[in-house]
Amino acid sequence: MREKPRILHTKTLVQTRLFRIEQVDLRFANGVETRFERLIGGPRGAVLIVPLLDDGTVLLIREYAAGVDRYELGLPKGRIEGEETITAAANREIMEEIGYGARHLHHLTSLSLAPGYLGHTTHVVLARGLYPQRRPGDEPEEIEVVPWPLERLTELLQQDDFTEARSIAALFLTREHLQHESAPS
Amino acid sequence: MREKPRILHTKTLVQTRLFRIEQVDLRFANGVETRFERLIGGPRGAVLIVPLLDDGTVLLIREYAAGVDRYELGLPKGRIEGEETITAAANREIMEEIGYGARHLHHLTSLSLAPGYLGHTTHVVLARGLYPQRRPGDEPEEIEVVPWPLERLTELLQQDDFTEARSIAALFLTREHLQHESAPS
Repeated sequence: MREKPRILHTKTLVQTRLFRIEQVDLRFANGVETRFERLIGGPRGAVLIVPLLDDGTVLLIREYAAGVDRYELGLPKGRIEGEETITAAANREIMEEIGYGARHLHHLTSLSLAPGYLGHTTHVVLARGLYPQRRPGDEPEEIEVVPWPLERLTELLQQDDFTEARSIAALFLTREHLQHESAPS
Repeated sequence: MREKPRILHTKTLVQTRLFRIEQVDLRFANGVETRFERLIGGPRGAVLIVPLLDDGTVLLIREYAAGVDRYELGLPKGRIEGEETITAAANREIMEEIGYGARHLHHLTSLSLAPGYLGHTTHVVLARGLYPQRRPGDEPEEIEVVPWPLERLTELLQQDDFTEARSIAALFLTREHLQHESAPS
């Protein structure tokens, strides 16, 4: 393993309501010094949930995405708040966004987004044993829930409004996980 | 399809060397008004390349990722510059980062990262027919090239330093693409 660059100096350039931009001065092991900018993620990270019914249907959502100014199809997600565990945050988010709670929550993996300049971590949680349970969220309009059979993943990938790398990775990872679960040991 | 929220007002809050943060005031179709912040991506987006040798080996790279302050394994990537096409940018990036050019470049799909607050688009390009061709890049240290057989994708997913949602999605999408290519028609 290589020796990590040494951080010489960090400085917060900007802090808005949502974002913090940091400037970092580094010295690489070869002596080269350079300056980066990076976005600092929330301290606890975010959760992205794969809510899976017993028959293999995933409950997707379609909601307005301000970053790209269009409605996007994807998985429910949100920030981890306060002292919540990863699975507690996942369960709260699906109650708020799709109106279900889950009896079984399994942390599949943790993803980075663009690790070169974003500090964000997203924890992927598989939610099964779903039961109707609604909690009020803070969404500006009702979220559309879109049931989609996981076995029709290839068709989902062809939808113009299903583009999010995290959601795509999470569904492939879920399919792999289920295949290993059902494989004879 | 729902009526899109109406953008009432946008304002650049911050412009740094790398980032632009915009504030957006919106009115949803139901009359609710709200304010978002979003990061504006580069005008042309980025490319993420899957460099694939004829024997099914993918050429990954391991490089320092300032956003998460560790070395990360992933696919070569970079911004589209000036008037470059998507495939020209992809070819330049692999010459700079792994020392190969490609005779065949295929734009597989385009990904969003976190569309709720990031405007970034990443174009995934499958690069085949590789030949040695090095172009000087602007990296602070030499990039480590890590050959990895695509058929060992499951093992790759278990590596602690392979976490990037875009790279994970791109390799699964490549596997799907190759399966369809080789399927009897």
